[in-house]
Amino acid sequence: MNPDIIKERQNATFDVEKLTYILDGGLEKTKRRREIESMVFSDPDFEEEDPNFLSRSERYDQAVRKSAQMILKLREYGIADPEEIYCYKTMVQGNHHEAMGLHFVMFLPTLYSQCDPQQSKKWLPLAESFQAVGTYAQTEMGHGTHLRGLETTATYDPATQEFVLNSPTISSIKWWPGGLGKTSNHAIVLAQLYTQGNCHGLHAFIVPIRDMSTHVPLPGIVVGDIGPKFGFNEVDNGFLKLENVRIPRENMLMKYAKVEPDGTYVKPPSAKLTYGTMVFIRSLIVGESARALSKSCTIAIRYSSVRHQSEIRPGEPEPQILDYQTQQYKLFPLLATAYAFSFVGQYMKETYHRISGDINDGDFSELPELHALSAGLKAFTTWTTNSGIEVCRMSCGGHGYSRSSALPDIYVEFTPTCTYEGENTVMMLQTARHLVKSYRQAKAGQQLSGIVSYLNEATQHRVQPQPVAARPTVVDINDLASLVEVYKQRAAILVELAAKSIQQEIQNRKSQEDAWNNSAIDLVRASDAHCHYVVVKLFTDKLGEIGDIAIHSVLSTLALLYALHGITTNSGDFLQAGLLNVPQVHQVSVRIKELLSQLRPNAVVLVDAFDHHDKKLNSVLGRYDGNVYEHMFEWARRSPLNATEVHESFHKYLKPLRSKL
Amino acid sequence: MNPDIIKERQNATFDVEKLTYILDGGLEKTKRRREIESMVFSDPDFEEEDPNFLSRSERYDQAVRKSAQMILKLREYGIADPEEIYCYKTMVQGNHHEAMGLHFVMFLPTLYSQCDPQQSKKWLPLAESFQAVGTYAQTEMGHGTHLRGLETTATYDPATQEFVLNSPTISSIKWWPGGLGKTSNHAIVLAQLYTQGNCHGLHAFIVPIRDMSTHVPLPGIVVGDIGPKFGFNEVDNGFLKLENVRIPRENMLMKYAKVEPDGTYVKPPSAKLTYGTMVFIRSLIVGESARALSKSCTIAIRYSSVRHQSEIRPGEPEPQILDYQTQQYKLFPLLATAYAFSFVGQYMKETYHRISGDINDGDFSELPELHALSAGLKAFTTWTTNSGIEVCRMSCGGHGYSRSSALPDIYVEFTPTCTYEGENTVMMLQTARHLVKSYRQAKAGQQLSGIVSYLNEATQHRVQPQPVAARPTVVDINDLASLVEVYKQRAAILVELAAKSIQQEIQNRKSQEDAWNNSAIDLVRASDAHCHYVVVKLFTDKLGEIGDIAIHSVLSTLALLYALHGITTNSGDFLQAGLLNVPQVHQVSVRIKELLSQLRPNAVVLVDAFDHHDKKLNSVLGRYDGNVYEHMFEWARRSPLNATEVHESFHKYLKPLRSKL
Repeated sequence: MNPDIIKERQNATFDVEKLTYILDGGLEKTKRRREIESMVFSDPDFEEEDPNFLSRSERYDQAVRKSAQMILKLREYGIADPEEIYCYKTMVQGNHHEAMGLHFVMFLPTLYSQCDPQQSKKWLPLAESFQAVGTYAQTEMGHGTHLRGLETTATYDPATQEFVLNSPTISSIKWWPGGLGKTSNHAIVLAQLYTQGNCHGLHAFIVPIRDMSTHVPLPGIVVGDIGPKFGFNEVDNGFLKLENVRIPRENMLMKYAKVEPDGTYVKPPSAKLTYGTMVFIRSLIVGESARALSKSCTIAIRYSSVRHQSEIRPGEPEPQILDYQTQQYKLFPLLATAYAFSFVGQYMKETYHRISGDINDGDFSELPELHALSAGLKAFTTWTTNSGIEVCRMSCGGHGYSRSSALPDIYVEFTPTCTYEGENTVMMLQTARHLVKSYRQAKAGQQLSGIVSYLNEATQHRVQPQPVAARPTVVDINDLASLVEVYKQRAAILVELAAKSIQQEIQNRKSQEDAWNNSAIDLVRASDAHCHYVVVKLFTDKLGEIGDIAIHSVLSTLALLYALHGITTNSGDFLQAGLLNVPQVHQVSVRIKELLSQLRPNAVVLVDAFDHHDKKLNSVLGRYDGNVYEHMFEWARRSPLNATEVHESFHKYLKPLRSKL
Repeated sequence: MNPDIIKERQNATFDVEKLTYILDGGLEKTKRRREIESMVFSDPDFEEEDPNFLSRSERYDQAVRKSAQMILKLREYGIADPEEIYCYKTMVQGNHHEAMGLHFVMFLPTLYSQCDPQQSKKWLPLAESFQAVGTYAQTEMGHGTHLRGLETTATYDPATQEFVLNSPTISSIKWWPGGLGKTSNHAIVLAQLYTQGNCHGLHAFIVPIRDMSTHVPLPGIVVGDIGPKFGFNEVDNGFLKLENVRIPRENMLMKYAKVEPDGTYVKPPSAKLTYGTMVFIRSLIVGESARALSKSCTIAIRYSSVRHQSEIRPGEPEPQILDYQTQQYKLFPLLATAYAFSFVGQYMKETYHRISGDINDGDFSELPELHALSAGLKAFTTWTTNSGIEVCRMSCGGHGYSRSSALPDIYVEFTPTCTYEGENTVMMLQTARHLVKSYRQAKAGQQLSGIVSYLNEATQHRVQPQPVAARPTVVDINDLASLVEVYKQRAAILVELAAKSIQQEIQNRKSQEDAWNNSAIDLVRASDAHCHYVVVKLFTDKLGEIGDIAIHSVLSTLALLYALHGITTNSGDFLQAGLLNVPQVHQVSVRIKELLSQLRPNAVVLVDAFDHHDKKLNSVLGRYDGNVYEHMFEWARRSPLNATEVHESFHKYLKPLRSKL
């Protein structure tokens, strides 16, 4: 154990283990998580080479092997609870992804939810026994966010009772689905349904794409891998071009909509049913943000405690780089953010489970708010985390750039969350739509409930965006309740500002739609402020649940830092709205510096509490024992370019060069 | 040619070709650049596979081959002017780096500048004929920024007239030098010189590391590649562990300091001489920022003009995504920034050449300011560009994540500029040191000249940080000269604020050094504001040189957008200092939206003007002809995972899995 890091741990002012329980959601959960961890990490079948040392094809190969292993192990151990499966898989995957992920996340669930009884009888056994390995093919090369724009067609031919599927253009080629390129022999294909000369919009079809025995692509199917990406090397994101591919009528998923043998189309009873899944996945992503950011902070803060560099006072030994104020200013607000997002992730999970009970009972009343919240928070947390990971990486100096730090891997595997499951800007605008709608309702006299209820007051007080000195500034910058209030008012003002911008545009004779587009910057800004408020509020609310005084104290410091740092980086908003005055903003800067010093002794133990196992982090910089350099050397020596002492390029190019000159 | 992009080009309000000349520095330069381009791009010897399809070892192999080819070609064509060589190499390298780069950038220049005449006679012919291929080994595993902390020792042994080199600890292993792992057979090693029992600090030694004929590492040398990184796959950044390696006394570079045969140490006459190189490289990096950002904007803006998505007005065809206000807000300020940095890069190059003439004449008077400016601007431009590339990438949706977009490559190859040649935070603090020093001089009555001369006024006016309403706000937000003034005052105020923070800390009985560290956040903020002012000023100054009315007009719009966008994102600073009032800040937001609309018709041609050849961009999204989708499909099909229809993992894992269940 590195002596610096030992000392850091001796400085802890609280019981680290207890904080871990809080983060996990209770002692029992921590215990079970660790049990699962040790199953994985002691299992020789999961020992592997660092994927960074492998070629793309080898990485994919290793990932498929692990996927197959996982299936067997989970059955062997009888792990069936979805959360435990998720935990198990997270451990196995480390910083990477599962080759067969889409089979579990999209193919099976779609079969479960959209097969009629006969289809279930046929397809579930095939899919559950991995005779049929599948994916979900929705996005096309030219079409992502906008589902109505998808071009793939499924035309019903009553003569043979088949659907004929086609990719009519290059831009209609299915593009991006995970596992489509090499792994799957089936795909659920989203296509525009044509029957009896009419288009009935998007429907889902089970399309066999490879021979189940030889795995060779079937006639009319052009399928393959879309090529290397920033990350996701384990996953064969694929393309699929359909050329007059015929599938039986029964391969259309018919639990809701149907096509009868003669081609008659039968409408689905309701369209709201897939809504819930999206909300669920976006809520999960909030938790993913917390995980990625807490991993990154763990690596950067542990490394900063064992790395010595330069001098603060001449003649003295080089200090730990964590003693530099600039380093603290980079990392501690992110540490606070990682805690904030962890608690928001918990909240979203709980809320989803609560509301999904209602949904099953047919009560959709809370869904719009949860939908808006999950969209906005998905964007807010992933954007923050995305840039935060890079700040952590760069705070490790040159070594952060080495794959041995794991930070490049964490970044490239995380960054797609800003794009998939709803592109972030689109998500922010969805939330804004809910906010503006709520604002208008409140203005029309309707009493709002839930998180947006603050818009009731906003419209009553007729908040103006520019009354600098007018507003009474009784804000206490050391009081979280007071800061929650300030964030709330900022959100209210920015929602109002956006709503007014739309109104203004309409007055300038713009259509409703153009007015919306011409106000989009303001709308995103309003959503961002709303989400920021929600995060500050939920972090503050969480403190109320914490009985342990020492932990309460350190988490309060983090929450305060989170709130004040957000004010500093958005001080213009608070000043413009007259919510804070100039001396207060200055005080905030001064207070932040104090909080950094206050957090310094607990920094390492605060990341320890996330309890990311060394094998999960897979980072030489983030090791629990702090023994960075010897392991970095050992890692480098295993690198494939060191397999030979003399690289063949010497003989091929360098030596001949001399004689040519 | 894609019809959308044809239409975009018809919208141009100015002569694109003429703007290219301005960016290149004149018609002749554009012509010569294109000549060199066509030499490279028509040369079959440089045809190659996309490096993204290759393994690490293959990439390195291909890069060494290209390095060797380049050497031969440059001689063949008689290209000897450093700028033309740079241009030629840039074309060959595309988005990647040169395997033998360090030989040219560090090994040869160090030999030229630090060999005494006898050493020159021996080493230059060896190095110029590539018998000796070398690198520059300074950083160690545990030591980067702080040179005095380096641990490698070179101890003189008068008995044999040799130096004995050692890496006494793990942390002293040389780490990171490019070309050290596999390519070089020599390294210039920086080591603490010990002779006659005394340490004389860092000196440079030529250390043979591999046999010149067999390329096998020499006794006592442990050398290898440091393993995979985020990017830089073409470069064998290496490690070097020295175990009692003996080199002759003559291998110490002795132009300045010397060790005589008996071990007597002779001091160098001055220590200022390597100063200039650092300044030169940092100035170059400003230009690199412009290049990386302009490439990224080219890709994102061209793609946004051919990509259609969703709907603004229901029923109408999907609009080009460049018509969304949010997309414009992401990309146009970056476009403006790319122009700003291009002109700042030109300025830095010119200034460097001007001052380096003075330096050669022994006049060092302007060096401190240039040193401070190049440090700060290096940090300012690389940080902005670093995050800007990622904004461009994510603005391309999912396809930005594909390596075919080139944006991941541009990012990973660029991001180390934030760390190398002076870590950015350290750079900002160096600039701050100059600013605070200048501020104190001005306060002590000294009249400052040069860029910091604004601090004269600041100290006269006794600017206070918090007089919101007190300051007369005669700012015209549409007048660039007025905005330059506002940026200048913001810088002055933040320098003063930082200086006062230090003073305050000292009054609280902190030592000078602790006071500095406890004010580091403010110091970085001051440097940032200073650099921001310089960029706005230089952009505005550049407009004065432009005679063409149409080009002047569009560049003025860009400059205005750059300045106003900077105000919006830092509005707290301007409000806090009372430089702008609340209605003005609101007007700035409104004005920005107008500028976005105003720039929209010229967006594509403004990136065309950067004239990045398709082969240099190597991006399917950024193609000049806009034919994105067909080339994306073609690229994907060439991907190595598609070399076989059925991946072996199917037979190895997936098929057996079925029978095990």
